[in-house]
Amino acid sequence: MTVDLRSDTLTQPTPGMLQAMMSAKVGDDVFGEDETVSQLEAKTAALFGMEAGLFCPSGTMTNQIAIKCFTRPMDELIADQTAHVYRYEGGGIAFNSAASARLVNGYRGLITADMIAPEINADNIHYPRTSLVVLENTSNRGGGSCYTLEQIKPIAELCQARGLKLHLDGARIFNALTHTGDSAADYGHYFNGISVCLSKGLGAPVGSVLLADADTIKQAKRIRKVLGGGWRQAGFLAAAGIYALDHHVERLKIDHKHAAIIAEALGRCPWVSGVLPAETNIVLFDTLQPASAVIERLAGKGIKAMATAPNRIRFVLHLDVHPEQVEYAVNALKAL
Amino acid sequence: MTVDLRSDTLTQPTPGMLQAMMSAKVGDDVFGEDETVSQLEAKTAALFGMEAGLFCPSGTMTNQIAIKCFTRPMDELIADQTAHVYRYEGGGIAFNSAASARLVNGYRGLITADMIAPEINADNIHYPRTSLVVLENTSNRGGGSCYTLEQIKPIAELCQARGLKLHLDGARIFNALTHTGDSAADYGHYFNGISVCLSKGLGAPVGSVLLADADTIKQAKRIRKVLGGGWRQAGFLAAAGIYALDHHVERLKIDHKHAAIIAEALGRCPWVSGVLPAETNIVLFDTLQPASAVIERLAGKGIKAMATAPNRIRFVLHLDVHPEQVEYAVNALKAL
Amino acid sequence: MTVDLRSDTLTQPTPGMLQAMMSAKVGDDVFGEDETVSQLEAKTAALFGMEAGLFCPSGTMTNQIAIKCFTRPMDELIADQTAHVYRYEGGGIAFNSAASARLVNGYRGLITADMIAPEINADNIHYPRTSLVVLENTSNRGGGSCYTLEQIKPIAELCQARGLKLHLDGARIFNALTHTGDSAADYGHYFNGISVCLSKGLGAPVGSVLLADADTIKQAKRIRKVLGGGWRQAGFLAAAGIYALDHHVERLKIDHKHAAIIAEALGRCPWVSGVLPAETNIVLFDTLQPASAVIERLAGKGIKAMATAPNRIRFVLHLDVHPEQVEYAVNALKAL
Amino acid sequence: MTVDLRSDTLTQPTPGMLQAMMSAKVGDDVFGEDETVSQLEAKTAALFGMEAGLFCPSGTMTNQIAIKCFTRPMDELIADQTAHVYRYEGGGIAFNSAASARLVNGYRGLITADMIAPEINADNIHYPRTSLVVLENTSNRGGGSCYTLEQIKPIAELCQARGLKLHLDGARIFNALTHTGDSAADYGHYFNGISVCLSKGLGAPVGSVLLADADTIKQAKRIRKVLGGGWRQAGFLAAAGIYALDHHVERLKIDHKHAAIIAEALGRCPWVSGVLPAETNIVLFDTLQPASAVIERLAGKGIKAMATAPNRIRFVLHLDVHPEQVEYAVNALKAL
Repeated sequence: MTVDLRSDTLTQPTPGMLQAMMSAKVGDDVFGEDETVSQLEAKTAALFGMEAGLFCPSGTMTNQIAIKCFTRPMDELIADQTAHVYRYEGGGIAFNSAASARLVNGYRGLITADMIAPEINADNIHYPRTSLVVLENTSNRGGGSCYTLEQIKPIAELCQARGLKLHLDGARIFNALTHTGDSAADYGHYFNGISVCLSKGLGAPVGSVLLADADTIKQAKRIRKVLGGGWRQAGFLAAAGIYALDHHVERLKIDHKHAAIIAEALGRCPWVSGVLPAETNIVLFDTLQPASAVIERLAGKGIKAMATAPNRIRFVLHLDVHPEQVEYAVNALKAL
Repeated sequence: MTVDLRSDTLTQPTPGMLQAMMSAKVGDDVFGEDETVSQLEAKTAALFGMEAGLFCPSGTMTNQIAIKCFTRPMDELIADQTAHVYRYEGGGIAFNSAASARLVNGYRGLITADMIAPEINADNIHYPRTSLVVLENTSNRGGGSCYTLEQIKPIAELCQARGLKLHLDGARIFNALTHTGDSAADYGHYFNGISVCLSKGLGAPVGSVLLADADTIKQAKRIRKVLGGGWRQAGFLAAAGIYALDHHVERLKIDHKHAAIIAEALGRCPWVSGVLPAETNIVLFDTLQPASAVIERLAGKGIKAMATAPNRIRFVLHLDVHPEQVEYAVNALKAL
Repeated sequence: MTVDLRSDTLTQPTPGMLQAMMSAKVGDDVFGEDETVSQLEAKTAALFGMEAGLFCPSGTMTNQIAIKCFTRPMDELIADQTAHVYRYEGGGIAFNSAASARLVNGYRGLITADMIAPEINADNIHYPRTSLVVLENTSNRGGGSCYTLEQIKPIAELCQARGLKLHLDGARIFNALTHTGDSAADYGHYFNGISVCLSKGLGAPVGSVLLADADTIKQAKRIRKVLGGGWRQAGFLAAAGIYALDHHVERLKIDHKHAAIIAEALGRCPWVSGVLPAETNIVLFDTLQPASAVIERLAGKGIKAMATAPNRIRFVLHLDVHPEQVEYAVNALKAL
Repeated sequence: MTVDLRSDTLTQPTPGMLQAMMSAKVGDDVFGEDETVSQLEAKTAALFGMEAGLFCPSGTMTNQIAIKCFTRPMDELIADQTAHVYRYEGGGIAFNSAASARLVNGYRGLITADMIAPEINADNIHYPRTSLVVLENTSNRGGGSCYTLEQIKPIAELCQARGLKLHLDGARIFNALTHTGDSAADYGHYFNGISVCLSKGLGAPVGSVLLADADTIKQAKRIRKVLGGGWRQAGFLAAAGIYALDHHVERLKIDHKHAAIIAEALGRCPWVSGVLPAETNIVLFDTLQPASAVIERLAGKGIKAMATAPNRIRFVLHLDVHPEQVEYAVNALKAL
């Protein structure tokens, strides 16, 4: 049996999703004529209480566009030191926006208003202007750790008080909502921009939607164009996104349950030195032996995984990992 | 009857193409595991005699990545003053590459080695370093005008002699090949980079392939990532591209024939002050009255078109314009 | 006898200027404590009817800062195709501002509102936003040709009507004022930014002053800092600038007279194929033989000059070229 | 009595330096004809065992040019989290070089090879390429703390082994050399680039010299130009730099002695909660009351100082602080 726990980006469309894709009505989105794309953008915006949306080929693009919209060259953003926008987007903060990153040492990828406040630069030509805070919910490197809206509120208030924009990297926002029980619609009160990824836990093949107010989205379209993200009959992919929003959100709790089962099993394995709390669909654990060696042995059992540090391994649960695979994995881990 | 002559980007997938998409084997292309994407990249590279390919969401992205690969900040490229890379890519030469454009006043969008040579800057810190020449074949603003390989050769030789890279914006390269009879495979001898668009005359919904040597494509992947063009299960779109290469190239001559028929009809219309030679699938013509007024009257007849200047209109033929529509259009133009 | 006509940047401080430098009161300008710098900035601003000034190490820096202040990344500026900001500033428009240049084919480096208007881009995500027009007075490559304020007025009105900023590259603005008789103070009505160079005709060793409104200068200080132009006890150089404004403006008419004398002499030389009108302190002329050969022969007579094209030579008159040198040069040219 | 301890950038030229400035032979440095500038560049390069030098208006400019020379867009540099290049250069790493900063939590601004090694990114398109390490000697925010060459050696070896460049921000390199007794000439073996500041402890009014190999300096000239740092008769300032190298290096030990005296006095003040070791000419100390309040009270005694954190004050000793002023300050601190 093969159990691929490397990433929730690996999912294949379900038959229903494929059917939705192939019956999509499409048009040239550069001309604003792809009605399926427009529908996805409006639907996602409404869901999160935002004015408008923009469908893009990746979460990196939605994040990078948001950062560009919310900063000027020479500005600085504040984020956790493990933030995807800083670590995994190819140096895009500097490349696309000519902006700096002030990194905060958060807890499991989560930061607080108290951590942010002292890092806001005074108005002095020696310092970059601080103009943006970026949160990631759930936090990938934090092991799927979540902010509640209650925790986000003081950050949003600090941003408003200090004239900073607040952007959410929502690569796994539905996992966070599933765990916290917060309402998506309330997010619009707190954030200036939200990236909603459709190709991770939700299982769509390609794409993320950037949400913001209408003026920002107008500017975002210009930036998407210059980055080369203006696509034509993207409705085939948008249809998958709509299907995912309609059918794949509820089921995320299954992935979370699977993650908890595996985390618990790992906690009993003698070759594991520690397991981070598995709040959502990610399990991070530390190994006594080098992660690379453990990954090789796991591969021998058909279990695929990735290292995130020399002694740390990440498992990600998703819709292509079924209960019997979880059971198989648990047994394999015990027997390793 | 409706005849949409605004752009060959408007095409809808044919049933065969849709079938190919639906049965595509896909995977996470960020992990290099989408075999349909890999197949498209290899197939296109082989077709043009290049080492490697990279599938991207748009022709703008392939062009912008190529420009970034072939220049350093402060450098300068040379292109025709109507070049798509300069006019229609949102200022991306400066934005993405921090490079300048030295524009040449070509003939119908086509430039020659003699025009290029005097624009190559001497080695002097006051001047940007000239490092790249970009050609567009066919030329959009030139009305689908074509370079033959015979014409390209001296430009390639000049570039080699002066240490410049040569990139082809092949948004409509198959139209050019259809008209000139040149071999695609010979293009690899002359160019460092080629953008091959699949979503214009070829009728695929989304995507372009950047071709270059393997080292450049490695660098291009990094740039695609930072621009947000790294996509996941893109194989659905790649399958459409493969289908287009297999089934939609031969038929381009039909679009060219249609364009010639319409150009000839326009030449006899008293309200038309001039028609550019229609070598491929584009017809550019000038109107005595403002183009906007003419376009409105055409719309009244169900014919959609776009202005490219205050008194100039563009018709583009493509696979969704059938013979009976061409006949209808010809009659409508005569009667206008 | 040696007559160095290569550039008016070559001038050496006069004894009076050196005395002014030596007795300057200086402080740390980064702390805003160099009173001589502050005095120069205020004096120059007042002279041109502008709110504030910023003393910088070069005219290139003042121009580049202005362009950065008046554009956003992806924007486009309009200028003559020979403009110093485009040709001689190392590709800085793209490098420092990520902006594009739309070049107009003016007459002797001078452009008109009629030339500018059709180059302003419509609001369309394919096109860069046009946000700035740059004029150069006098035009270096135009051979010291001048705009009158009367000619500038319709350009300023067009800019205002279309929401564009207007910047003046005043590398040789005092030569223009000397020729046209316009009042410097009136310039403030028309321009958003003015670069005033002190190290060309005015004979100061180093420096230019950027003039604009107070908000723009505040932003300009930030940009000067990031470019590395924040200097410490710059008052020594500012003192030379103040001295130049007080003592070297009146005498520019002597340079103009010298230029006219030399231009007239050139007009009679059989080896000269044409002489551009010498309105100010620059004489551009074309030679039957290659400029390089002529320059070598001139050097043999002690006359130093530079080529600006394969058959074009530039002479620049300045305060270190005295009447007897002009007479010597005239005779040497006749005898060549 | 007034004692200005805010910064060693505040120094005024001594009479000898002023005399050297005013008798300098100058020329147009853009034409490479300012022999005093060339002499300064050659002298400084020889002193540090480097091939070539470039005289620039500020230490920020020399650092920023070096970073641009040693990185490509998207790259990442590694530095201490308090590094001047990151904190005090206006966000220039991102703005001028489109590069990211990976910050290390060093000890008093000093980092080690062991801290650097784990921060070098693997070759993966998600991560910026690590291409540069920047050290600052002495460290400003570390309170004038020094690296010895012995400490630098393993960092240089790591950089060489991993293909990284190594740059030294030598804003106060002569203070470090004075303290460690290391030879300047040995620095050339370890660094690819060195910024040598003349306007801090050395007391010149303006300027820093960037040192590197000849190819890098050629590239650096191009970058200096595009940033607007190409200046004309800069020899007046270069003469001050030469004088400073000849006459103001030996005396730095006096500033260090003064710093030690003041640090010792502070250590006995009940209102001081801690004093960092004063290795060179900077004294950093923490106050029980807010720094702003203490600075105000110091100002009442004629002692000027700056805060570097809410409860931390910086004193900087320099050639305009004489023994009697130190004595006065010591007494004033005791009596506060």
